[in-house]
Amino acid sequence: MNGLSVANAAPQRPLPAQTLVSPDPGLQAFPPLCHCVPRSPMRSLRKKVLMVMVTVGVVAALIRSWTPKPYGAVDVRSKPDTKIEKLLEERLHLSQHTYNDVPYRLKESVAGLLARNGCVCEGESGGINLPYSHLLFPRVSAQDLHTAFKDSELEEVKRRRAQEYQGFQKRSQTAADVLIVAAANSPLQYPTQGVEVRPLKTILIPGLALRQKTRELYLVNLTATLGTFDIAAMVDNVSVRGDGETHMTLSSRLLASLNRQLQFVTYTNTLFHPNTVDTVQFETDGHQSVFTVKVRHGVTPKLYNPGPRGEYNVSALVTVATKTFLRYDKLQDLIDSIRQFYPTITIVIADDNEHPKPVNGPNIEHYIMPFGKGWFAGRNLAVSQVTTKYVLWVDDDFIFTANTKLEKLVDVLESTTLDLVGGAVREVTGYTASYRHTMSLEQGGDEGDCLHIRRGFHHAIKGFPNCVIADGVINFFLARTDKVQQVGFDPRLARVAHLEFFIDGLGTLHVGSCDDVVVSHASKIKLPWGQSESDKAYAKFRYPGPAQTKNSLLFFKNRFQCLTHN
Amino acid sequence: MNGLSVANAAPQRPLPAQTLVSPDPGLQAFPPLCHCVPRSPMRSLRKKVLMVMVTVGVVAALIRSWTPKPYGAVDVRSKPDTKIEKLLEERLHLSQHTYNDVPYRLKESVAGLLARNGCVCEGESGGINLPYSHLLFPRVSAQDLHTAFKDSELEEVKRRRAQEYQGFQKRSQTAADVLIVAAANSPLQYPTQGVEVRPLKTILIPGLALRQKTRELYLVNLTATLGTFDIAAMVDNVSVRGDGETHMTLSSRLLASLNRQLQFVTYTNTLFHPNTVDTVQFETDGHQSVFTVKVRHGVTPKLYNPGPRGEYNVSALVTVATKTFLRYDKLQDLIDSIRQFYPTITIVIADDNEHPKPVNGPNIEHYIMPFGKGWFAGRNLAVSQVTTKYVLWVDDDFIFTANTKLEKLVDVLESTTLDLVGGAVREVTGYTASYRHTMSLEQGGDEGDCLHIRRGFHHAIKGFPNCVIADGVINFFLARTDKVQQVGFDPRLARVAHLEFFIDGLGTLHVGSCDDVVVSHASKIKLPWGQSESDKAYAKFRYPGPAQTKNSLLFFKNRFQCLTHN
Repeated sequence: MNGLSVANAAPQRPLPAQTLVSPDPGLQAFPPLCHCVPRSPMRSLRKKVLMVMVTVGVVAALIRSWTPKPYGAVDVRSKPDTKIEKLLEERLHLSQHTYNDVPYRLKESVAGLLARNGCVCEGESGGINLPYSHLLFPRVSAQDLHTAFKDSELEEVKRRRAQEYQGFQKRSQTAADVLIVAAANSPLQYPTQGVEVRPLKTILIPGLALRQKTRELYLVNLTATLGTFDIAAMVDNVSVRGDGETHMTLSSRLLASLNRQLQFVTYTNTLFHPNTVDTVQFETDGHQSVFTVKVRHGVTPKLYNPGPRGEYNVSALVTVATKTFLRYDKLQDLIDSIRQFYPTITIVIADDNEHPKPVNGPNIEHYIMPFGKGWFAGRNLAVSQVTTKYVLWVDDDFIFTANTKLEKLVDVLESTTLDLVGGAVREVTGYTASYRHTMSLEQGGDEGDCLHIRRGFHHAIKGFPNCVIADGVINFFLARTDKVQQVGFDPRLARVAHLEFFIDGLGTLHVGSCDDVVVSHASKIKLPWGQSESDKAYAKFRYPGPAQTKNSLLFFKNRFQCLTHN
Repeated sequence: MNGLSVANAAPQRPLPAQTLVSPDPGLQAFPPLCHCVPRSPMRSLRKKVLMVMVTVGVVAALIRSWTPKPYGAVDVRSKPDTKIEKLLEERLHLSQHTYNDVPYRLKESVAGLLARNGCVCEGESGGINLPYSHLLFPRVSAQDLHTAFKDSELEEVKRRRAQEYQGFQKRSQTAADVLIVAAANSPLQYPTQGVEVRPLKTILIPGLALRQKTRELYLVNLTATLGTFDIAAMVDNVSVRGDGETHMTLSSRLLASLNRQLQFVTYTNTLFHPNTVDTVQFETDGHQSVFTVKVRHGVTPKLYNPGPRGEYNVSALVTVATKTFLRYDKLQDLIDSIRQFYPTITIVIADDNEHPKPVNGPNIEHYIMPFGKGWFAGRNLAVSQVTTKYVLWVDDDFIFTANTKLEKLVDVLESTTLDLVGGAVREVTGYTASYRHTMSLEQGGDEGDCLHIRRGFHHAIKGFPNCVIADGVINFFLARTDKVQQVGFDPRLARVAHLEFFIDGLGTLHVGSCDDVVVSHASKIKLPWGQSESDKAYAKFRYPGPAQTKNSLLFFKNRFQCLTHN
């Protein structure tokens, strides 16, 4: 089988297929089935004869046509199988008794925690008006994000957004998200999760059995959509129909034989998809069960070689990344301060100045961008170039001091499952901020979700007394390069933006914050007559008008209707 | 509660919590529980009094300390709960009868498809030695990837790789991957998939019920690890113990009442994690069931505004991206040819020449990189700057012709769930290639997996007669910008690399290939005396020695032990 790889139409199964008996190698519940079968001497002669025959056939085929013939065409236009969804819906209804005659009393404290129908976009009003009260009691303000668009264009924008969202759902939803309820008192035993197969490969389905009272004939059916069933071994006294097809029936008069046979049921994925889910129905007379089988390539890691054993080699593990605009003097101060403590660490600089100046030095990578391309574009560029395990983000007006111990941040990421850990930024006044924020998404139906951002954090971190878990942190952080690159900084955000990165990272980034690693912020206190030309030009770009672009992006790109924050 | 956000220790629940009753809004199996509770006039007065009291307390607290007190510290250092894994293992063994006394006969054709113990790194030997036989019968060759390292360093490299992989597993594995088998003949009804809660929020658990024969007392227990149970409504004649805790017991003499109560059981996630899974045990006397609850922020889309309705506005939807090195003449030919057909499309150029020349023109973005930074670094840079829905990758020596109809590629991505679609590249000789490849990963245990790459494709695509599904395609493709940015081009690949992008994309990218959209390749036929200095310099960079870096990356980064390909 292996030698017949030819450049013609039919794609072939390139290699012996895969089994995932169990994700946990410790679970040895199934009898070993794979034996090394010795190659017979007849096979090489047979192979030669076969090859000669095929050569002739192939040459003829090649002459005939170069274009591939359709082979098992697949439809990638439509939603996942709605038939399965209907089936699951019906089963759900059948399994629900309504008990409408049994009265109840609401428990307000808990019922109030449940989702409302849609989310409401409101901030807070009232409260005490003390001086600086907003510092002690920051009020929650709410922004209806659709106001980022003119009334005249809003309908069209909503229509397009709905259409794009529909496409997104088609691509991202699978049967793995659908609610399945296991019926009680079913004689069927089956796996409810953990069954996975590589695309176009074959596995044993673990855990299938029938535990039924005595009857004349024991019979089970198996049905799938994206693959076929078969048996890896044959047991006497069991009748098998539909082996190799999407619907297979096993029956026997002996229950032990049927159950032995069920231990050898295989599933083969036949409709290729790199990451999807097949739904399997397993039934016997009067009882039906449903479970899903993951069909996917598997998760390939992106590991980084950390360098020699021993103390954390910060220069081998970390690249410093920053973006600069109109502040070459501050940038040079930053570089000089880094070099005091980390003489050989690589520094990546994204630069969108109109008239770029050279930024030289060993282990400095300087990237020139089109003028004014933008803040997040520059951030995305810088991190796209990092080749070390971790990336340290700094702003171009930071200054490293003796308190900027990157080893501490590295230790956090080396010892925990966090993906990103922020530090603290110390202003000239002595005020030090870690800018910790929590975020939550409240479902809002067709109008979009509501995003709630609050100052604060979730938990402290055991073993790291100065560190906490949050959802967003300050712009001084160490992070796993592969995770930051995976989330990315959206180049559509040209000017002011910060938490947008963490919004895009929700569900992907596990974020922490340690306030004992401190970088200093070059002075921001500038008297108006003391501002240089470049300071004024910078201010023009840095502090633009209303947050038009940010909110329009939150509305369209992330499909939010509302943002509340304090 | 909402107004008391203060800059001290205790993080607070910032807003009313979330419920995910059912992922499918069509499933209306549960009684509506959420009513809008009107604000009572008493609340604002009570609020004022409370605020005064708190002000005093807060000022005192602020004076006392700036550092946050630990609040429900979380341990993010260790693996997911091994106690649960042990429990599931035990249950699995209990549910497995061995049936060792029932004999069987292997069905070779199927048993042979199952995974072997580890993967073997072998190519093909023998076969007919015809002239050009390698064209008709491309032989599979195999590379043991550890050979990318010197023997002296191999042990250390393996040790580091194992350590990095361990960290990766801790971060990526959850209880959702563990095999769970539903026992037969259990009186318990419960959800086996589809239960999801946002972090720190509350949901109703759907589908819980007890269907038991008549007995004196009906009793069920619920246990969780990352959250607590409660009830949203109270039913008479049901005793509830442990509401608000990780272990809750419900009991009643009336089965209908207990089942009505079970319809109001809530789960609240209390240990924050942006994307994890809690395991819930639901049991009654002599029977136990286990199911998982997803705890995650939810999937936020990254949508792009496609521009005005009507025909595909290619310039609004597509950005052309390329990397250039030592071939400004060819680059200019490319740009001129693009402009013939797409006068305003944005072209992003990553340039790592030693002496960069300006590349000017409207809608051209030219990025200057450090000299020789590299091929994939340049690709990663270019795509990191794209702000349109799709990105078209081209090499800098391509030429657009009348056959380069980007509208066709856009149509494929607009109408299907594909993420990327390749075209075809036509050489000066007339030979046109689409470079379609399929890939599969074979598990190999601790030594790493085996990666198998073969020429060919999986299926044709319904509705698109010239298009097929594959895993890797040629370097001329249109793709969804967010997916390409999510996968990324690894900047560690400095020189020759191509399929590495698709390897990193396995499981993430749904890849297609259409051979009716053709771009021309500027002539590669060069007589040695006709080569310019820049051609020779280019060849030096382009065709380096053995694929050291590529294979060492496959070994370490992706944790492969073997690569076979034809």
